[in-house]
Order: sequence, then C-alpha cells, then structure tokens
Amino acid sequence: MAKAVLLLSLLLPLLLFWCVAQAQLAKEFCVADLASSDTPAGYPCKPQAAVTADDFYYRGLGTTGPTVNPFKISLSSAFVTSFPGVNGLGISAARVDFAVGGVVPLHWHPAATELIFVVEGTLSCGFISATSSNRVYTNTLYKGDMMVLPQGQPHFQYNLGNTTAVALSTYSSPNPGVQTLDFALFANNLPSEVLTKVTLLDDLQVKKLKALFGGTG
Amino acid sequence: MAKAVLLLSLLLPLLLFWCVAQAQLAKEFCVADLASSDTPAGYPCKPQAAVTADDFYYRGLGTTGPTVNPFKISLSSAFVTSFPGVNGLGISAARVDFAVGGVVPLHWHPAATELIFVVEGTLSCGFISATSSNRVYTNTLYKGDMMVLPQGQPHFQYNLGNTTAVALSTYSSPNPGVQTLDFALFANNLPSEVLTKVTLLDDLQVKKLKALFGGTG
Amino acid sequence: MAKAVLLLSLLLPLLLFWCVAQAQLAKEFCVADLASSDTPAGYPCKPQAAVTADDFYYRGLGTTGPTVNPFKISLSSAFVTSFPGVNGLGISAARVDFAVGGVVPLHWHPAATELIFVVEGTLSCGFISATSSNRVYTNTLYKGDMMVLPQGQPHFQYNLGNTTAVALSTYSSPNPGVQTLDFALFANNLPSEVLTKVTLLDDLQVKKLKALFGGTG
Amino acid sequence: MAKAVLLLSLLLPLLLFWCVAQAQLAKEFCVADLASSDTPAGYPCKPQAAVTADDFYYRGLGTTGPTVNPFKISLSSAFVTSFPGVNGLGISAARVDFAVGGVVPLHWHPAATELIFVVEGTLSCGFISATSSNRVYTNTLYKGDMMVLPQGQPHFQYNLGNTTAVALSTYSSPNPGVQTLDFALFANNLPSEVLTKVTLLDDLQVKKLKALFGGTG
Amino acid sequence: MAKAVLLLSLLLPLLLFWCVAQAQLAKEFCVADLASSDTPAGYPCKPQAAVTADDFYYRGLGTTGPTVNPFKISLSSAFVTSFPGVNGLGISAARVDFAVGGVVPLHWHPAATELIFVVEGTLSCGFISATSSNRVYTNTLYKGDMMVLPQGQPHFQYNLGNTTAVALSTYSSPNPGVQTLDFALFANNLPSEVLTKVTLLDDLQVKKLKALFGGTG
Amino acid sequence: MAKAVLLLSLLLPLLLFWCVAQAQLAKEFCVADLASSDTPAGYPCKPQAAVTADDFYYRGLGTTGPTVNPFKISLSSAFVTSFPGVNGLGISAARVDFAVGGVVPLHWHPAATELIFVVEGTLSCGFISATSSNRVYTNTLYKGDMMVLPQGQPHFQYNLGNTTAVALSTYSSPNPGVQTLDFALFANNLPSEVLTKVTLLDDLQVKKLKALFGGTG
Repeated sequence: MAKAVLLLSLLLPLLLFWCVAQAQLAKEFCVADLASSDTPAGYPCKPQAAVTADDFYYRGLGTTGPTVNPFKISLSSAFVTSFPGVNGLGISAARVDFAVGGVVPLHWHPAATELIFVVEGTLSCGFISATSSNRVYTNTLYKGDMMVLPQGQPHFQYNLGNTTAVALSTYSSPNPGVQTLDFALFANNLPSEVLTKVTLLDDLQVKKLKALFGGTG
Repeated sequence: MAKAVLLLSLLLPLLLFWCVAQAQLAKEFCVADLASSDTPAGYPCKPQAAVTADDFYYRGLGTTGPTVNPFKISLSSAFVTSFPGVNGLGISAARVDFAVGGVVPLHWHPAATELIFVVEGTLSCGFISATSSNRVYTNTLYKGDMMVLPQGQPHFQYNLGNTTAVALSTYSSPNPGVQTLDFALFANNLPSEVLTKVTLLDDLQVKKLKALFGGTG
Repeated sequence: MAKAVLLLSLLLPLLLFWCVAQAQLAKEFCVADLASSDTPAGYPCKPQAAVTADDFYYRGLGTTGPTVNPFKISLSSAFVTSFPGVNGLGISAARVDFAVGGVVPLHWHPAATELIFVVEGTLSCGFISATSSNRVYTNTLYKGDMMVLPQGQPHFQYNLGNTTAVALSTYSSPNPGVQTLDFALFANNLPSEVLTKVTLLDDLQVKKLKALFGGTG
Repeated sequence: MAKAVLLLSLLLPLLLFWCVAQAQLAKEFCVADLASSDTPAGYPCKPQAAVTADDFYYRGLGTTGPTVNPFKISLSSAFVTSFPGVNGLGISAARVDFAVGGVVPLHWHPAATELIFVVEGTLSCGFISATSSNRVYTNTLYKGDMMVLPQGQPHFQYNLGNTTAVALSTYSSPNPGVQTLDFALFANNLPSEVLTKVTLLDDLQVKKLKALFGGTG
Repeated sequence: MAKAVLLLSLLLPLLLFWCVAQAQLAKEFCVADLASSDTPAGYPCKPQAAVTADDFYYRGLGTTGPTVNPFKISLSSAFVTSFPGVNGLGISAARVDFAVGGVVPLHWHPAATELIFVVEGTLSCGFISATSSNRVYTNTLYKGDMMVLPQGQPHFQYNLGNTTAVALSTYSSPNPGVQTLDFALFANNLPSEVLTKVTLLDDLQVKKLKALFGGTG
Repeated sequence: MAKAVLLLSLLLPLLLFWCVAQAQLAKEFCVADLASSDTPAGYPCKPQAAVTADDFYYRGLGTTGPTVNPFKISLSSAFVTSFPGVNGLGISAARVDFAVGGVVPLHWHPAATELIFVVEGTLSCGFISATSSNRVYTNTLYKGDMMVLPQGQPHFQYNLGNTTAVALSTYSSPNPGVQTLDFALFANNLPSEVLTKVTLLDDLQVKKLKALFGGTG
C-alpha cells in the first residue's frame, strides 16, 4: 500500500516531465509524403500521427523483379519513391537477379555511391575511374563479397558462374538516380548526327542501337 | 542649395540601384512556417513580409520551466517548434534548473551536439563514449564552465552543490531531439519479455520501472 | 527479315526493362517552383512533366542591366529567383558592366563564395580578411583573369582602365545574398545615434549618407 | 593503309587532349590512408598511384564472424577502419549471424541510419522513437525483407525462427559508430551510485550487470 | 557459487563480444590536434588514447576577459583554437561583459549563426537584413532572453541599463570567424582613396578612424 | 593637442581589443597545401602567414589552352589542383575555345553541376536526363547566354557558328572531376569482349575506337 502511494507520488510528476519532454522532442525521421512536391533535400514529412511501423519496412526485395531478357537479369528497387521511410536518411537499396549470362549494362549514379553485396553466385564487377587515367578497377565477387562503386563512376556487373546470381546493392542516397549508357545514348530523340558528332560512334552503330532501344532521330 | 541638388542628383540613381539590388537579394534566413509540413532540411519559410523582430527573439528561457519532482529539475526548451527564427540555422537552446539533489537522467540527442554552460551553481556532467572502450568522461562544472557532449553519446548532469543550479544548453541543430533512457525503455508498450531479452535487465526491474514511467506490456 | 525479327525480339524486353528502369529513376535536378514557399534547402520542385529546356537556360546576362549612375556600373543577376533551373544545384551568376570610373561598392555574400571572371577590360579587385589581421588581398585583373572571394568576406571591384569593363561572377549557391555596406548602414531606419554608437562614424557623416541612400532616423 | 594514316592523324591530337584532360581530372574517390590521422570528414587519401582494385573490395562478410555466446550471435563489420575504399563515400556494412534464440541487444548508431536486409531466416526488429511518445515500431522480417532504423534511435533484432538467421546491415556513414546499451551502462568504471542516480535502476541490478559486463565502481 | 560460475560462463563470451564490438567502433568525436594543419572540415583528430575529460571542458568563460575601454566591454571566446573538443561538432561559444554604456560594435560572422543569451542585465540587440530592404530587426533583451542572428548578417549589441550586463553567445560552427566593421575598414593598409571610392565615406572620416584603429594608407 | 591625447587614449585599448579579437578569429578560407595528402573535404590549409593575394588569383584562363585537333577545341581548367585558393569553397572554372566545327564530346561531372556562359560565338548545348525518360534538353546559346548542366548528367557542346566560340564554365565544386564517354570506354585496357557485353556496341566499333583512343584489350 505504502509502495503504491510512493509509486503514485512519483508517477504524477514524471508524467508531467514526460509531457514537457514530449513538447520539446524533435524530428528524428521524416517519412516521405509522396503526394507533396519533392524538394532539394527530399519530400516533406508525413504527419507523425499517421506514421506506422509499415513505413520503415520494405517487402519488395524478397522476390525477383520483372525479367529483362536480353540482359538476362531482373531488377527491383527500394528508393524513396517506393520506400518512403528512407526519406532524408541517406540510404536506399535495389536487388538484381542474374540468370546465367546475365549482365547489368554500363551505368552510373549521379547522386550516390553504390555498395554491392553478393547474396548468391559469382559476379564480375568493375568501374572506370577518370581520375586514374581511365583505369578500370575490376573484382570477381563470390557469395558474401562486397565492392564499393564511387558516385558518378560508370560501372557494370555480370554473372561469371553457371548458376543464378543475386546481388543486393545499397546506395548513399534515398534517391540515387541511374544513368544507363545505352538508354542515355539510344533511347531518346537526340538526332543521330548529333550523337555521332559528340561520341565519334559510327552512324550505322548509332542507328542500329537506336532501333534496338526505341530511340528516334 | 547646390548641395541639396547634388544630393538629389545622386539619390535618384542610387534608389534605382537599390531597387535592382533588392531584386537580386537572396534568402539569408528562413523563419519557420510551422503550419506547413516539415522537410528533411527544416520547415518551409514564412513569407518575408510577415517576418518581424519577434521571430528572432525568445523570452521563454528567462524563467524556470515546470518543476519535475523526482528528478528535482525544471526544464524549458527553445527548439524550432517554439522558436521559429532558428529554422535552418543549425542552432537552438534549452534551460534546466536543478534543485539541491536535482538530476537530468541519462539521455542523448540523435541529431545534435550539446554545449552546456553553467549559469549558477555546480554540476557533475559526464558522457559515455563507445569509441574509447565505453570510457566515461566526467567533469565538475562550476559557474561559467562549459562542457561539450558529442552527438549521439549518452550523457547526464546532476547538482553537486547545496544550492540551486541553472544551466543553459545549446545544440548544433534547430531540432536536436532527445532520447531519455528511462522513457525509451519504460514509457511505452514494448513487452517486458522483449525488453529483458534485448537489455538483460531483470524482469522485476523492468516491471518496477514500467510501473513508474507509465509503460505497459 | 530475320534481323527485323531479332530486333523485335530484343526490343520488347528492352522496353520492359526501360519501363522498370524509369520507375526507379530518381531526382537529378529540381527546377524551382517559385510559387511555392522556399525551404532552407531551396524551393520545392516543379513537376517533372512541366520541365522544359528553357528552365535550364538563362538569356538575361547577354545584355547589360540597368545603369546605376553614381557608381557608374550596371548590374544583372541570375539567381534562383530568376533562373529556376539552378535550384538545389549550388551555383548561380551575375554580370556587372563598369563604365570608366565604375565601382562595385564594398559588399559581401552571407551564403556564398564568389568567383569573378573578367570578360573585358581591367579591374582592381580586393577582399578584406578578418583572419589575417584584417589584411587586404588585392589583385589587378586583366581580361580572362579570375579571383576567388571567400564567403562572408567584404570585397570590392573598380574599373582601372580607360574603357568599359565587363565581369561575370559566379557563386557557390543558387541564392548567394548580398550585403552592401552603404545600404546596410544608410538605407534603413536605424536611428543615427545607434549607428554612430556601433560604428564610431561621425554623426555628420552618418546623416550625410543617410540622406544620400534614403535612410531615415 | 590510308585508314591507318587517318587513325594516326586522329590519334596524336587525341592523346594530347587526353593528357590535358588527365591534368584537370579530379578526386572521385579517396581511399583511406589509415596510417594518417583521421579528420572530421574522414581519413586523408592514399596516393592515387597506390590504389588497386582490392581497395574497393571487401571479402570479410562472406563468412560468419566470432561467435558471442550469451547473445547467440556472431558479428563482423566493414567500416572504414577495415574497408578503406568506403572513406568519404557515406556508406558501410556489417553482417550478423543469429543462432536460434540469438539477439542483437539494444543499441544505436550516433552518426548513421541503418538499413537491415534479411539474407536468411526470420527476425523481429524494432526501434524506439522519442518523437512519437516513445512509441516502438516493430516489424517481423522474413528473408528478403528490409527495415530502416533512423540515426540515433535505439533498436534491436532477434531471431524469431527455429533456424539460423543472417542479416546484412548497411549504414549511411563509412564510420557509423555504435552505442550498445549494456556496454554503455555496465562495461566501464562509472560509479554505481552515479549510475543508479541517472537511470533509476536499482543498485542490485546495476551491480549484477556490472559484474556480468566487466564494469567496476 | 553456482551463480559465480554462471556469471563467469557469461562473462567470457561477452568480453569477446565486447572486444569485437570495440574493433568496429567508430569516430564519435574528433578532438582537434592543433599542431596539425587545419582542413576545410576542421583539424585532424588527436589520437583517441590521448583524449581526456579535460578536452571536452572549457573553464575560460567563468571570468571576464580583458577589458576594452572605448567600447566598455570585455570579451573572451571558446572557439576550436582554444577549445579543441568542439572540433567537427558544429558549435562554439563566447562571453561578453558590458560595463554601463558598453557596446559590441557592428560585426558579422562569415561562417556561423549566433544565438545570444543574456546572463545578466539588459541589452539592445539588432541585425540588418539585406533580404528585407535592409530592414533592421532590433529587440530589447532582458536577463534570460535570447536572440538569433543569422549567418553573415551585420549585428550589434549595447548595454541599455545602469548596471553591468553579461551575455553568452553560441555559434553554429566551431570556428565562426568575425568581421568587425571598424577593423575591416580602418585597421589595415587599404589606401584611403580606395576606401572612400568603395564606401562613399568622406576622406576626413576615413583618415580619422584609420588613425584611431591603427590603419595606414 | 587635446584631440591627439584623446585619440591616443582611445587607441591603446582599441589595439588591445584588436589583439583579443585576432586571437579569436577563425578560418574563413583554406588555401590548399597541395604538397599534403587530399582529404574527403579538400586539401589541408597552407599556413595563414604564407598566404598571398596570388593564391586567390588565376591568370590561366586569359589565353586559350592547347589545341585538340579532331575535336577542334582547346581547353584549360582552374580546378583546385592548379588554383589552390578555391580549396574548400565549392567553386572552380574552365575555359573552352571552339574552332569552327569544334565539339566538346559527351561527358559528365561526377561531383559537380556546371554553369556554362558563352563569351563569344554560338553553341549548341544539351544534356540527357535519366529522370525524364532519357529526355534530351538542348538549347542554342548565343553570346552572353548561360545553361546549367546538373551533376552527373551527360552533356555536350558544339560550335554552331562560322566563327570561333569561347565558353567559360564554372562548377559547384573545387574539384568537379570529368568522365568523358570516349575515354571511359576506349582509352583503357578493359577487354573488348567485356565492353561489348556491357554496352551492346559492336565488336568492330569497339576495336575501331580503342585504336583511336589508345585503349588495349
């Protein structure tokens, strides 16, 4: 009985303290409100009261994404636009499944470094560094290995083995972006004569790949 | 008279220059519009025309905040949510008054470093550093002394003297956040068996403090 | 024919890949929506579908801005408020044309470093560094020369030659701001007695320049 | 032959261009020189000529780390101090293997957000948010699932299944730091009477866990 | 006895865990090694083993600094160069004591926002905003009041009362810098004719204040 | 005489104040000490006493750089490695001179946005945006026009006119880096079969351009 009274006498002022403390508490996360306009620092925050555990959880990488035949890979990503909990937190992820012979074509991330981890299989992974006389840094990655691919450097991965490979990539941004070389060159309406002028690729090569990737001009 | 004409002849083009200059002027502060949604970089800005000197002024720390008996302290804060002028400017403040025996319990700031300054009295202040083998750095702070408490490190203060003590703390963020150990552990509905599993605290201890701090489960 | 079939068979899955890739693409620019409230990190982004090449293009510096007689310069700027494409990208620009005897009066940028490039003519350009005992770093800049003027340091330029000079300045912020000494001191209603107290300028001097720049008090 | 001459005539000036371009190339990565003193932005860079593909590669997460019996987990990490290629790039990783009943005790990262990905098995994972009235956000994570754990928020994981579980965690910093509650409280020489004062834990509880974790005082 | 054995059996693997955990721990502070060259992000870190509680402690603001008669103030500061514990942590402090009639002359901080707190007495404090048509925001600050003074904006304080006043200012940088108008204009060797040209101050005024502040030219 | 005494009586304490103020002054620039190792935030600072006005001055863009025939351009740059005054200040520059028919081939900057300003002549300038379905944003730039080219996005410029053109580009980093597509693909030892696999370019095309750009494999 005396204990209960003691507890009560402690409890009331503590609750008061707790209320005061709440009042001064601050933003420790900012789940994206994707219906609002993005800003240079990320999306505005969803109201705290509407946040649930689901906002911090992403189930999408548990299965393979849509197959992409000529490259023999499948791909799914957990960027802020599909995983609002990472908004403003400087991290996101993607999963790639490689069939035998599968290739992630040359690409780069304008706003993020990539850290690739091999979940299954064996990959060749490399990036081209402008800094070191266009030197190529390539590694063979076995299950459990990682490689870091610095921001803005073009890189590639392909399956070296006779079995399926799976990679988990994480990025130093909730919205890393990606520039895939073939899409950047051949999947738009940049006129062929401009493209040959600024790349020195042959006109025939340009037209062949524009046909393949749906580009015009 | 000639002087007046001269002044006038200078004045007109200067006013023109002044207008042009105004047109190119830029954001040098961003008083929070607290009615809008927060973003990862802070609140959207109140329209410039609505800004007054009051927005940059905070009177709340002139008196003690609400008393919190078991800890024998009182507490008030000037974070962006109550002091909109600090929005986007990387600084904010709080005041703690310690009765004799008063204690600020173990806590940390997820997003800011604290700089504590003793206005009156004598405090013991320490933080626990994971980096240096969990070493504790403790100092006795007399009137006018300061201590810096790095971001994310758990720290505490308590009154060492026979008189009231007052501290002013400032933070390297307009919205530093605070995680108080007792509230984090015992003021929510995390089931006791989970809490004992992840802290190795005894079940009895957990239940006693959950009762004290209003936690359930 | 076989080739067409082959292309087609490649094309379809590639388009699928392209669609998937699009879905995961991310923010690589954020053209300012100037109708929305600014934030500490810049303006919210205009919807991607509304962005055109014009948003990244600025024609305003091709001609001289309005003439400003007593200083014998003309001035135009391309900050985010007039050039929305630079929003969030850490860069902007301004152009100054100097008549013979033209002067950009002492000023500083609270939130940006300036890099000045001489397009035509010869300038004297200097800044005052608090760090080095208020040392003044001054250079004579000929056509094609540059000087860097660090953030927050007061600096000036004036035409050293017998012909018009033109400078292009760029800034390390889309919204660099500018504090021009004469406007800060003399173009507002700060009472003269306060101004003399905090600057040690003579009362007569203060009143003379307040008259010139339209200040009151 | 004519083609060879043409190629040669193109090659020479291109090489010149290439040399000029090299001269202006810039830092795109900064592999840590761990023998130099760290700075607030990371370690100084290893000379470019000494960088090899191995610097961007980490093999350590391919196997389990040392077993830690009472918690029934094993742990290895790839932070900048062991993986110098991530220096300055805002990302790093760790791997945890959970035996049946395995637990990662309550801890937080002072300088990084964590993104946990389940490689094998089923985990319970939660964090405690000061912002939302000490609300706990908990999810059950199956193979392939992810959860984001915001910077500075205390969190835990434990194995929910009857089989081993494996998690890969990545962090938004090359050097995320970790504060483990039990180590912070009980593995140092902070006197017991101070610890009870600032946590309200019972003296007996404190002494029991200090004995367990090797703390003194 | 059985308990001691149990504790021991728990203790050994925990110590192992603790060792592993230590190995992966990371930089949570970076006490300045002032003997090394500064970098754009702050000084290199002192070796962890050499860090003591004193590094995080500053006693210098407990007493008044040297008196400065014409301004009737005394001044001492706790920037990174005298308080190495704040290195890399985004915060620092200074103390000003005002005699009756004391003035802090017009100045600004190129790299930090200031938050001023009145410890004793009554001050007038204002800043001049270029953004709002050179509007001056001024407040009367009583004991316990605060005002925020945004980065790069010129500001002043003076004692309004009949008694001594004391202010504690904190800054959003460990190394805020200060540009004091009178020193910038009159305490160097910038030739008078240049100074009059770029400020429109009278030659007599310039020479009078150059004489006062030790400037030449 | 009385005035001289008054001045003197003011001068002495002011000098004292000036000395105190100097002691607390802070880093407002950090001229690169290029002989020291770079860090992720830039080069360590040259000692203040060794800094001269020349460090902030760059003469190299006043004349054209070395001619590069096949592209008919000449190029010189003012990055931190040649212009140490921009270290840590978030800005740098380059100049390109275009002969009739001159082209800057497709390239991107991994760590900076570019702002291009046309000093003379007429250019076509475009960038390819991954975000907007690989849309190309192209503008014709006349003398005095500018275009902003966001970080990491591939872009090109070529001379549209019948006369020489000159462009000044500035960057939002002292060390922007550059990845030129042709060099990245064809000026290294990445084996041809890997290159064809990750780009889908024809083997013949790859070999032809490797021959041209000096690549092997």
